[in-house]
Amino acid sequence: MTITPDPSNEHAMPDAAWTRGRVGLWLIGARGSVATAAAVGVHALAAGIAPATGCTTAGPGLAGVPLPGFDEIVVGGHDLSTVPLARRAEMLADAGMLPASVVAAVHRALSAVDAEIRPGYDPATHAGSQADAIQRLAGDISAFRTRHSLAHVVVIDVSSTEALPEDRPEFHDSESLAAALADASQAILPSSSVAALAAVESGSAYACFTPSAGLNLPALRTLAERRGVPYAGQDGKTGETLLRTVLAPMFTERGMHVRSWAGTNLLGGGDGATLADPEAVRSKLVSKNRGLLSLVGEHVVAPLHIDNVPDLGDVKTAWDHVHVEGFLSTRITLQTTWSAYDSMLAAPLVIDLARLLSLADAAGQSGALPALGFFFKDPWGSDVHAFADQATALRSWASETGLAVAPAAAASVAIGGVR
Amino acid sequence: MTITPDPSNEHAMPDAAWTRGRVGLWLIGARGSVATAAAVGVHALAAGIAPATGCTTAGPGLAGVPLPGFDEIVVGGHDLSTVPLARRAEMLADAGMLPASVVAAVHRALSAVDAEIRPGYDPATHAGSQADAIQRLAGDISAFRTRHSLAHVVVIDVSSTEALPEDRPEFHDSESLAAALADASQAILPSSSVAALAAVESGSAYACFTPSAGLNLPALRTLAERRGVPYAGQDGKTGETLLRTVLAPMFTERGMHVRSWAGTNLLGGGDGATLADPEAVRSKLVSKNRGLLSLVGEHVVAPLHIDNVPDLGDVKTAWDHVHVEGFLSTRITLQTTWSAYDSMLAAPLVIDLARLLSLADAAGQSGALPALGFFFKDPWGSDVHAFADQATALRSWASETGLAVAPAAAASVAIGGVR
Amino acid sequence: MTITPDPSNEHAMPDAAWTRGRVGLWLIGARGSVATAAAVGVHALAAGIAPATGCTTAGPGLAGVPLPGFDEIVVGGHDLSTVPLARRAEMLADAGMLPASVVAAVHRALSAVDAEIRPGYDPATHAGSQADAIQRLAGDISAFRTRHSLAHVVVIDVSSTEALPEDRPEFHDSESLAAALADASQAILPSSSVAALAAVESGSAYACFTPSAGLNLPALRTLAERRGVPYAGQDGKTGETLLRTVLAPMFTERGMHVRSWAGTNLLGGGDGATLADPEAVRSKLVSKNRGLLSLVGEHVVAPLHIDNVPDLGDVKTAWDHVHVEGFLSTRITLQTTWSAYDSMLAAPLVIDLARLLSLADAAGQSGALPALGFFFKDPWGSDVHAFADQATALRSWASETGLAVAPAAAASVAIGGVR
Amino acid sequence: MTITPDPSNEHAMPDAAWTRGRVGLWLIGARGSVATAAAVGVHALAAGIAPATGCTTAGPGLAGVPLPGFDEIVVGGHDLSTVPLARRAEMLADAGMLPASVVAAVHRALSAVDAEIRPGYDPATHAGSQADAIQRLAGDISAFRTRHSLAHVVVIDVSSTEALPEDRPEFHDSESLAAALADASQAILPSSSVAALAAVESGSAYACFTPSAGLNLPALRTLAERRGVPYAGQDGKTGETLLRTVLAPMFTERGMHVRSWAGTNLLGGGDGATLADPEAVRSKLVSKNRGLLSLVGEHVVAPLHIDNVPDLGDVKTAWDHVHVEGFLSTRITLQTTWSAYDSMLAAPLVIDLARLLSLADAAGQSGALPALGFFFKDPWGSDVHAFADQATALRSWASETGLAVAPAAAASVAIGGVR
Repeated sequence: MTITPDPSNEHAMPDAAWTRGRVGLWLIGARGSVATAAAVGVHALAAGIAPATGCTTAGPGLAGVPLPGFDEIVVGGHDLSTVPLARRAEMLADAGMLPASVVAAVHRALSAVDAEIRPGYDPATHAGSQADAIQRLAGDISAFRTRHSLAHVVVIDVSSTEALPEDRPEFHDSESLAAALADASQAILPSSSVAALAAVESGSAYACFTPSAGLNLPALRTLAERRGVPYAGQDGKTGETLLRTVLAPMFTERGMHVRSWAGTNLLGGGDGATLADPEAVRSKLVSKNRGLLSLVGEHVVAPLHIDNVPDLGDVKTAWDHVHVEGFLSTRITLQTTWSAYDSMLAAPLVIDLARLLSLADAAGQSGALPALGFFFKDPWGSDVHAFADQATALRSWASETGLAVAPAAAASVAIGGVR
Repeated sequence: MTITPDPSNEHAMPDAAWTRGRVGLWLIGARGSVATAAAVGVHALAAGIAPATGCTTAGPGLAGVPLPGFDEIVVGGHDLSTVPLARRAEMLADAGMLPASVVAAVHRALSAVDAEIRPGYDPATHAGSQADAIQRLAGDISAFRTRHSLAHVVVIDVSSTEALPEDRPEFHDSESLAAALADASQAILPSSSVAALAAVESGSAYACFTPSAGLNLPALRTLAERRGVPYAGQDGKTGETLLRTVLAPMFTERGMHVRSWAGTNLLGGGDGATLADPEAVRSKLVSKNRGLLSLVGEHVVAPLHIDNVPDLGDVKTAWDHVHVEGFLSTRITLQTTWSAYDSMLAAPLVIDLARLLSLADAAGQSGALPALGFFFKDPWGSDVHAFADQATALRSWASETGLAVAPAAAASVAIGGVR
Repeated sequence: MTITPDPSNEHAMPDAAWTRGRVGLWLIGARGSVATAAAVGVHALAAGIAPATGCTTAGPGLAGVPLPGFDEIVVGGHDLSTVPLARRAEMLADAGMLPASVVAAVHRALSAVDAEIRPGYDPATHAGSQADAIQRLAGDISAFRTRHSLAHVVVIDVSSTEALPEDRPEFHDSESLAAALADASQAILPSSSVAALAAVESGSAYACFTPSAGLNLPALRTLAERRGVPYAGQDGKTGETLLRTVLAPMFTERGMHVRSWAGTNLLGGGDGATLADPEAVRSKLVSKNRGLLSLVGEHVVAPLHIDNVPDLGDVKTAWDHVHVEGFLSTRITLQTTWSAYDSMLAAPLVIDLARLLSLADAAGQSGALPALGFFFKDPWGSDVHAFADQATALRSWASETGLAVAPAAAASVAIGGVR
Repeated sequence: MTITPDPSNEHAMPDAAWTRGRVGLWLIGARGSVATAAAVGVHALAAGIAPATGCTTAGPGLAGVPLPGFDEIVVGGHDLSTVPLARRAEMLADAGMLPASVVAAVHRALSAVDAEIRPGYDPATHAGSQADAIQRLAGDISAFRTRHSLAHVVVIDVSSTEALPEDRPEFHDSESLAAALADASQAILPSSSVAALAAVESGSAYACFTPSAGLNLPALRTLAERRGVPYAGQDGKTGETLLRTVLAPMFTERGMHVRSWAGTNLLGGGDGATLADPEAVRSKLVSKNRGLLSLVGEHVVAPLHIDNVPDLGDVKTAWDHVHVEGFLSTRITLQTTWSAYDSMLAAPLVIDLARLLSLADAAGQSGALPALGFFFKDPWGSDVHAFADQATALRSWASETGLAVAPAAAASVAIGGVR
C-alpha cells in the first residue's frame, strides 16, 4: 500500500482557527498499546495520510470549535518499558492491530517521540520519598513543555489498571498527605496517583483513562483545584460500556424495565494479563457496571466477567445478554456481541481529550470538567451516563468554551443543533 | 395466578389531570394480534391489575403531561374477521404471548369491545363505489363517538401490511380523486387508504402503524389538513429498527464510519405469512432501511431480509451484523440478536398514540405531528431518526401541548430536563 | 387445547416386545423440576397424548430394542419438599415450561405419584446414624417394589447439586466406611451418597444425573459391584456440553487446533440459586469442562461461568465463544447461543435411563455401564466424550443387550447401521 | 517474524512411506484466492515452515496412510487472470488473510508455479469448437505431467461458481454430446464442464470443489468412468454447512425435531461478488441446503441467504438460527455465528484431496469415490451427510486403500479405532 497525503483531508485542518500555540500530549504508559496507537495516529493525521475516523472532535458535532490541529500536538511521556516505540508499533502491525503501511510512514516521527519518553515511577526500585518521585516526574513534564515551547500540556494516564488502594486518612487531607509523601519510609500513593500529582505539580491538564486511583483521591483533587488545572476522568468508555449507555436509555425511555444485564468480556494481550489479576479486575468491574446501574436501577442483576484469553490477543469480544420486561410482563431479550481492538477504540479518544483539555486550559477553566464525562465510564463531576445526553452536554460546553477562546472563529458553530 | 388491583399502581392514575372527557380508540384491524394485545392491555391498566410497562406515556419523560387515563379509553374498530376478541386473546395466551390470568380478568371487557367492532372494508365483496364505503366506515366511527359521548376519537391502523399501490395522478389531486372514488366501476384506493379517509371524514385523529399507504398519499393528506385533524405515522418502530436508531447515532457521534449493516428477521404468525408475500414485504423493507440510511449515509451496504418461519409463531428474532470502520481503518463488528413478541412491543405504543393524539386534538392541533415521529420507522413531517433526538422533541412537544390544554395541571412538568 | 389420544402414536408402543414386567422409576429429588417434568412426561407418553420427542430410546437409533413401555413405568421417590406434585407441575406450566393442557390431562396420575413419594434424608434433622438413614430409605424403595410388583427398580438422582466432600480414608475402604456409618455421632457421607447407598442396598439399578458425589466414591462403587447392581453416571449432558461434544470432534477431525473455548451460562430457577453457591458450582464447572478438555487437549484456555440470574427463571441461556486456529494460523471463531428450559432437556433422558437400566438389569449386567456415557458429561467407566462415538457405542450395547434379553423380538435390529 | 524450519514438524513427514512418485495438483482457477492459499500452503508445508493445521490428512484419523509428502506435490493450473501469483498472495497478505512472513518465504516457489499456469477456457474469445478447447486444455495438463515426470495428476476445480445450465439431451448421451462439442457453432457445455472433460481426457483424477456443473452431467460421468479416472465432489464443505452436518445428527440422535433452520451468510471479496449474481447463487443455495434437509427432513423451513457485503472482504460471517422441538413440545433455540476467511478453510481440503485422489489413482480406483464425500456439501456417490459417519467412512476407505497401495507401510494403521 502506497500512501500519499490526501489534499482533501478536511480533518487535518479544523475549520476554526486555533491560535493558542502548540500543545503537548504526555502519556503515562507511553509505550503501551493505547499510547502507541495514539502516537502513530497523531502523526498519521498530522501528515494527512489517514482520516480522523473515530475522533469525536473531527465529527459533525464539534465542527467549528477551535482546537489544536493534529500537527500542533507533540507527544512524550513516562513508561517503565524501554522497548522502542517504533518496534512496539511494528509488533502491533504484525498482530493485525495497526496498518503496517501507516506504521512504516510514521517511523521517523515515532523515533522522535521515543526521545521524549522518560522512565516512569517504579515503586520497586525508587529510592527516596514519593515527594522526590513526584518532583522528578513533574520536572520531566516541565522540561518537555520548555523544550518544545508548548502553550499547554495535557497529561493522560493510559497505563495498566492497578488494584485500588485501601482508603486512608491521608487521602482526605492534603496536609497529612504532604507529610506522608515526604517520608521516604512510606509509599502511600499508588503509582497512578504519583503520576497524577506530578501532572498537577507541573501545571498540566490531566485525564485519567483507566479505572486506577489516579487523581481520584479527595486530597489530590483539592491540590489540583488549588493549582488551577482542568481535569477529567475516568476510565475510557470505548466498547461494551459505550453500547450499554445508548441501549439502557432506549429501554427506560420506552417505559420498559430492565431485569438483568449479564456480560462477559474475553481478551488477551497486555490488558488481558493485567485483568487476570482479581484485584485489578475488581476496580474495572465496578467501574464498568456503575453507569449501567445508574441508568436502569440498582435492582438489576448484572453479573459481569472479564476473562484473560491470551490467544485472542488485543481483540476484545464482549457478549451481553439483556432481559427486559415489557408490556403485560412480556419477555424481551437482546444479545450483543461487540468485537474490536480495544486500544484502537481508545486511541482516538486520547487525542480528543488532548485537544479538548487544551481548549479548557486555554479558556482558563480548572477543576473537574463534567462535559468530558462523554468519554468515560465513570464521569467525574457528573452523574449523567446516557450517551445522548452526554453528547449534548459536550457540544454545548465545547461551543461555549470555543467562543470564549476564539470569539470570531467560533461564530459559525451551530449550538444545540439536532444531530 | 390471582390478580388483585395494586393500589400503589401509579401508572393507572397520571399525575396531571385530564379534564377533556373520554376518548375513543378505533382500531383498523381490531381483531388482529396488535389490537387484541392493546385491548387486553387498556383494560388491564384501567383495572389496575398490570403496570403500564412499555408505555412511553407512563414513563418518566412525560410525567406531568395531562393525558386521558387508561379507564377513559373506549375501544372499538373495524375488521373483516369475526373471531370473538376474547377467543383471540385466549389463543394468544395459549401461544405464550399474553398472560392467561390477565386475559381471564378482562374477559368481560373484551366482550364489550367486541360489540364495538364493525365489518371492515373488503374490496372483494364491496358492491358500490369507494365513496360509499368511506361513508359507511365514517358513519361507524361517528356512531361510536356518539354512542359513548366521546370527546375525541383516534383511529389507528394496525391491520396487515399491504403491497404499495402504483402511483396515479388521482393520488395527487383531491378533485380527481373524489371523482374516481364516486365511480363504482373503479377501486382506486388500497384498503388502508379507504380506512384512513373514513377516519378523516369522521373528524378523527389518525395514526398509521403500518407501512401501507394509509393516509400517505398527497391528496389524502390535503383532505386531512382541510378537515383539521391531527395525524401521525408511519410504521411502528418497535424492535430491530428501534435498536438501529440508537446505535447508529452512537457510531456517528464518535466519528466512526458504518460500512455495512446487514439484517435478517425471522417470524411466523400472521405477520410472517403476510410478509412472505414479496410485494407486501417490499414496502416493509424500504421502511425499515430508510431511517438507517438517513442516519449513517446512503452509501452503506444494508441487505435486509424478512423470512416467514411459521414454527416461530409471533416471536420475532432479528439478527443484525454491523461493520464499522474506526481509527486508522480498524475493524469493529457488532452483532445484535433481538427476540420478542412483536405485537407486545407494538401494543403499548398504540395506547401511547391514542393518548397523545387525544392531547393534540384537545389542543386544536391539526396536520402531521412531527414530534410523534418518536414512535415510527418513517416519521411523517420530520427527518429526525435518531432516537434520543426524537425523545427530546416528544417531551418538548408534549410539555408545551400539555400546558396549552391544562395550564395549571402541567405547571410542574420539567421541560428539557436531562434524563 | 383439547387433547385426544393419538392412535398412530408409534412411540407409546415400542416395536420390540418387553416381557420382563413393570419397572419402577424412583427419583431422588422427586418434587424438583426435572422430576416433575419426567413424571408429567411418563404419564403423557403412557396415555399417548404426547409424542416421545427428545427421548433417545424412541429415536431411530434404538428401534427394535426391547424396552419397557411408558405405561409400564411406575414413578415414586424421595424428597424433602412436601409441595404436591400436581401443584408443582401447575407452577411450571404457569412459568411456560410445561404445557398447561398436558399438565391438566395427567393431574390424576400426578396425585398417584405423590402417594409414592417419601421424605428424603435430611442431615439437619436426622437423629440416628447414617446407617439407620440408609436402611430407612432402602426400605422405602423395597416397599415400593413390593407394593407394585415391580420387576426392576431404577433409582435416579435428580436432586440439587451439592458441594463435593473433602476426600477421606473411609471413602476408599468399605469396612471403615461401614464403621463410620454405624456411628451416630458422625455424618460422613453427603446426602447424595446416602441416597445412592440406599439404592444399592435395595438392589436397584442407579444413575447419577447430577455432579454430586452420589455413588462416585470408591468404597460405594465397591459395594455396588458386590451387590451386583448396574449403574451409570454422571451429570446429565443436556445443553451446552452436548453441543461441545459434537463441535470439538469436528475441529479435531479436520486437523484444526482449538485455542480457547469460553462459556457463560445464565439461569435462574432453583438450579440458578443452587449454583450461586460457589462450592456447589465448582463441582459443576469441573464436570462441564472435563469432556471438553479431553476432546481438544488440556492446553486449551476454557474460562467458564454459571451466573444466577433469577429473572430468567428455568430458561438457561449459554453463550460459547470458540477460537480455532486453522490453515497457516488463520483465525476461525464460532459463537453459539443455546437457549432452552434445562429441565425439559433432562426429563426425557431420565426416562431413557429408566428404560435402559431396566434392560441392563434384566440382562443381569452389573457395575458401571460405559455405553450409557452417552447421557453424561462425566461418563463412568469410559473416557469417550465425542457424541457420535458415544451414540455408536450406545446402539451397539443396546442391540446386544436386547438380543440377550429377548432374542426373538430383537432379531430385526440393525446393528451398526449408518444414521 | 522470522521463520525457521521446524525439525520436529511431524506433519511434513507422514509416517507411512509413499513410494509412488511425485504428484501434480492442477487447479482450475489457479490464480483465485483458494488456489493462491493452497499454493502458498503446499510450499510452506513442504519447507516445514508451517504445520499442516486444517489438513484432515495430517490429523490423527489418517495417520499411517501412505500419502504423497507435501514436497512431492507440484502445482500448476488454468486461469483467465494474468496477475502473478506472488502478487496475488501479497494482496491477500495485505488483506490479513495470509501471513505476510509465510508469503515472503515462499515467494520463489510461487514464481515457479506461475510458470505452470496456462490460460483457461474463455467462451467469450475462444474461436473453434469446444472439442478443440478441451484438447488444448488436456494438452496443457499432459505436458505438465510429462515436464515434471508426475506419477499422478489431480485436477481440482476451485474457480468461481457458475450458473447451472439448463438441462439438454446431449448432457445424457455421450455420442450426441461428442457431436455437439465438435460443432464450432455451439458452446453447449459451461466452462466448468469443459475443464472437467479436459481433466478426464488427460487421464487425471478430478475433484469439483464448487457447485458448478463440472463433471456432474451424466454424459461426462460416463466418459470419466470409461476413461477409468477416479473423481470426487462436489462443493467444498468448509464452514456453515460443515457445522450443520455435525449439529443436525445431534438433534436427531436425541430424538428432537428440528422445525426450522434459517441462515444468513455475509461475505465480500471475489466470492461475494460472484454470488451477488442471483443465478450463480441459486446453485450455491441449493447445494448448501441439500445436506441439511437430508439430515433433518424435507419438511423443515430453511430460508437461506448469501449477501454480497464488499466491505467485509474475504471474511465470511454466517449466522444460523435453529428452532428445535423437544420433550412435550418445549422450544429449544440454537444460534451459531461462524466467522473465518473462507478460502483458508478451503485450501487445506484442496491439498487433502490432491493427496487422497493420488492414493486412489495409485490403487487403480476409478469412478466416483463416495468416501471423499467427507469434504463436500453434495457428496457424489453417497447420501451420507452426517459428519461423523463421513469421517468413519473416510478412515475406513483410506486405511484399506493404503493397504492396497503400500501393504507394509500401512500395517500399523488402526482401523475403525474410536476417536
